[in-house]
Amino acid sequence: MRILRLADYKKSPNIPRLLLRTIFSAACSIPKPCRLSPFPCSTPDLPHSSCRNIHSHSGPSRYPILKAEARPSPEARTCRQSRAFSSHLLNNPDHHCGVAPSPRPTPLRCRNLDPLGLAPPLGYSNIAVPLAAPLTLNNKQQPSHRRTTHSQSAKMTVPDSFPHKHKVAVIGSGNWGTTVGKVIAESTSEHPDVFEKDVQMWVYEEKVRVDGETRNLTEVINTKHQNTKYLEGINLPTNLIANPSIEDAVKDATILIFNFPHEFINNICRQLKGKILPYARGVSCIKGVTVTDDKIELICEFIGEQLEIYCGALSGANIASEIANENWCETTIAYNTPPCDRHVANGNGQANGNGNGAYEEHRDSRGQIVKTKLTPVPEDYPPLDHEVLHTLFSRPYFTVSMVSDVVGVSLGGALKNIVAIACGFVEGHGWNMTAKTAVMRRGMLEIIQFAREFYPETIQPATLWEESAGWGDMIVSCTAARNWRYSKMAVERGVSIQEIERTELNGQKLQGISTSREVSSFLRARGIEDKYPLFKLVDGILDGKVNVNDIPSLFRKN
Amino acid sequence: MRILRLADYKKSPNIPRLLLRTIFSAACSIPKPCRLSPFPCSTPDLPHSSCRNIHSHSGPSRYPILKAEARPSPEARTCRQSRAFSSHLLNNPDHHCGVAPSPRPTPLRCRNLDPLGLAPPLGYSNIAVPLAAPLTLNNKQQPSHRRTTHSQSAKMTVPDSFPHKHKVAVIGSGNWGTTVGKVIAESTSEHPDVFEKDVQMWVYEEKVRVDGETRNLTEVINTKHQNTKYLEGINLPTNLIANPSIEDAVKDATILIFNFPHEFINNICRQLKGKILPYARGVSCIKGVTVTDDKIELICEFIGEQLEIYCGALSGANIASEIANENWCETTIAYNTPPCDRHVANGNGQANGNGNGAYEEHRDSRGQIVKTKLTPVPEDYPPLDHEVLHTLFSRPYFTVSMVSDVVGVSLGGALKNIVAIACGFVEGHGWNMTAKTAVMRRGMLEIIQFAREFYPETIQPATLWEESAGWGDMIVSCTAARNWRYSKMAVERGVSIQEIERTELNGQKLQGISTSREVSSFLRARGIEDKYPLFKLVDGILDGKVNVNDIPSLFRKN
Repeated sequence: MRILRLADYKKSPNIPRLLLRTIFSAACSIPKPCRLSPFPCSTPDLPHSSCRNIHSHSGPSRYPILKAEARPSPEARTCRQSRAFSSHLLNNPDHHCGVAPSPRPTPLRCRNLDPLGLAPPLGYSNIAVPLAAPLTLNNKQQPSHRRTTHSQSAKMTVPDSFPHKHKVAVIGSGNWGTTVGKVIAESTSEHPDVFEKDVQMWVYEEKVRVDGETRNLTEVINTKHQNTKYLEGINLPTNLIANPSIEDAVKDATILIFNFPHEFINNICRQLKGKILPYARGVSCIKGVTVTDDKIELICEFIGEQLEIYCGALSGANIASEIANENWCETTIAYNTPPCDRHVANGNGQANGNGNGAYEEHRDSRGQIVKTKLTPVPEDYPPLDHEVLHTLFSRPYFTVSMVSDVVGVSLGGALKNIVAIACGFVEGHGWNMTAKTAVMRRGMLEIIQFAREFYPETIQPATLWEESAGWGDMIVSCTAARNWRYSKMAVERGVSIQEIERTELNGQKLQGISTSREVSSFLRARGIEDKYPLFKLVDGILDGKVNVNDIPSLFRKN
Repeated sequence: MRILRLADYKKSPNIPRLLLRTIFSAACSIPKPCRLSPFPCSTPDLPHSSCRNIHSHSGPSRYPILKAEARPSPEARTCRQSRAFSSHLLNNPDHHCGVAPSPRPTPLRCRNLDPLGLAPPLGYSNIAVPLAAPLTLNNKQQPSHRRTTHSQSAKMTVPDSFPHKHKVAVIGSGNWGTTVGKVIAESTSEHPDVFEKDVQMWVYEEKVRVDGETRNLTEVINTKHQNTKYLEGINLPTNLIANPSIEDAVKDATILIFNFPHEFINNICRQLKGKILPYARGVSCIKGVTVTDDKIELICEFIGEQLEIYCGALSGANIASEIANENWCETTIAYNTPPCDRHVANGNGQANGNGNGAYEEHRDSRGQIVKTKLTPVPEDYPPLDHEVLHTLFSRPYFTVSMVSDVVGVSLGGALKNIVAIACGFVEGHGWNMTAKTAVMRRGMLEIIQFAREFYPETIQPATLWEESAGWGDMIVSCTAARNWRYSKMAVERGVSIQEIERTELNGQKLQGISTSREVSSFLRARGIEDKYPLFKLVDGILDGKVNVNDIPSLFRKN
């Protein structure tokens, strides 16, 4: 009964909803997850045709088809799962609505969530991108994190019939946190069918002077609707609610947006643990990775692991103040929808998600099954996937594209800062734009090489080649952002960048410096620093051991 | 006998050269070209093992191996070709040096000509890149222009024993032509083993005022060693010889560098036809494509077709005046070494090139066999391939990387000008760097889409993703070059860009305007202009029908 479309249902109001719901709940009952092409059915004794005929899933729309002829959707692919109705269905494959058997599995179609609508995804033309991770990985199958840009969601025409809406909480309220809070609160107002209107924003309480008075920052935000300390002059939506209690802010929230300086991650995760919904999902706006000599870890995965939830990552060519001022920017969100959140039937009988099965294990960026068993988002919430997140973050001035490659987005967001430092050196030295461009290009090659070396299972270089979180972020970071600006200043003034950091940054740190240090140390610990000459060079310049003049020599043929 | 290495020969001076030469010329005699893995032998009745054993080619070095045991090179791959010695070799596969049969074909190794030495090529990890085009294309084989970056050349340790050296002529002496002439003349001086020292530069003769006198430009260049009209203040090498006669300038030249405004192509090709060596090869520094409603044609291929030679293309993130001032820049040269220039034994018995066979037909950018049968570069010249061109163009301040994808380099060089116009509009409008970056990113996606649509047989998107001729050129063009600068100025002044072209450019034209017009017309003629919203938008703005304010709306989700 996943072959009924909501649109058709709406055209046929005389079909009782209760009947629909009954049919749906029956149709969604199959003993084990199985899937059609391109993956073999995971239940060897369950013929494809039987589950395809009964449980076809409509690809472009997440809602079932309701037609008299009730044919399987052309994008028919997966089926779902519960124990009750199984044997009857298996023995009577055409039980529902007289569904005609499809002669063979049909290729996937997926809607392009990139606003330009360029299709097919450029790195993967003529490939039917699987909408979800395979149930079990073997050598012949694709890795679970296979690039699924624009593929993990369907046309959003969510009805207003879900018993629950998603409640969103923003954790952090600095310049970038407040900006994202503004974006999100605007969206939740516009989409009451999917989200609760009010967005809680956890604010680290502090006293601020406003209009000659000393007041709590939360009170100022909630009355004046401005974050006078971190985002002065920007009017915030009234439904963005500042909350000094982190526990209270995240209460009942299904979507958590993490947005604070990364040095607070451990502490905040400790406070949140056990206080959030078990089926909450996260998006980390904290770019990057944590690197020690022993290991490298994506920040979003660290958060997910600590809180026992799944957490994606947001990064891109965007600067908080620009977005806050509603100057048009782009961003990329990497979210590899957990299998358990795909294809869950909702309370009202709507099909949910577009992946393949609640019984798959979720895999991390290294292709490993994650230790924590995720709790699926309940069926009475709108499906929590690419489409919902795209809706949540998109504004007329903020263009979002969705990918599944958390590695590309996280590493791009972190390592580009090293390249930006190098570009500042080059430009401060008086070299031209062409030289700077050469450094950017080589930096991008090293980032991709790094990703391939340490995340070979899941990296999709197209994320870096094509997305805002890749080349887009690189260009902006090397042309108009802090790391570049201050390293340029250092060369121009003839002092070290550390000196500039001390004198100009008012206690703040340049992320490029620490990332360079950590990454170089990590590479040295493995004896492979020479494979990354640009990263090594930046580290050498920071040490005062290498001169900026040596940069072109790196690019000469030996 | 292609299994003898020059290095070993040098260590064994007691082996008479004449003997070597005899052995080599015998070894290079096989009736038809055949190759080993990854391509099947083109002669069905010639077993792979027999030709592999006899005619193994050493991949990383173009020189044969000379060892007592004389084993096939690990990179053994191709064999060559002449009619004489064939039947004997076929019947006596182990005739030479007791070569032990290799149990199976071994994968290719190719040396990375990218100065950074990042390997494997990022878009194609774990793929053994074929060094040459397959002899016959069928559906199962790779296209002949498969990306062969860093693969069409071997370690350059050319001996000084070639009877002939390459003579280089530069056709054109404007700002860019003279700059390239300077680069090349410096290189030929440094590599007398490969090139004749003097570089002829054809100069359109004109009178110039120098030191109060009116003199011929050629005379000024040849005495003062400056092009006072087009590259004032730059000292030119004394071996760059200005020549007012185009016929005389190209006489006996094996390498022709084309570098003049593209509107003169027809006229100059007419003058050159029949006046050049039949085995001359070209490199076009004239970026781009010619587009009419009927067809699109790469400029380098047009030149090659007109002159009945092969011609590659140079493009990249470089600005003539920067290179002339020896400010460090990068570039990309696309040169798909014709099969007939690969694996030609030279007079001194050295193996030449590293492709597969003089009897293959050369294929154009659309995968079609070119009509003109190319005359191979004679064997008594140093091999004319990636290595030689890399040597010819490389300077300490000018980093060159070699690819085979002429489509990527040509289309990138042409279409980025449309994107640069759009970026000028965006920036002139006061939008930020992030907005401009979004336009660049989308522009790049449309360029790749365009290349895929019209050159599906040979485009390698990695050229655009990774090379200086791709993202590198895009960034420089949208940040520091003419099309961007003047379109920005137009918006800032509130006039049309055509008006700016008239008032500010002293008769010169902005290439982005004409490219936009031609490409839009070409797309309209096919009814597919809506697939390229950015290209369409620029055309609309040039027409005055679309407002710059409409740009972000293109990127919104519908």
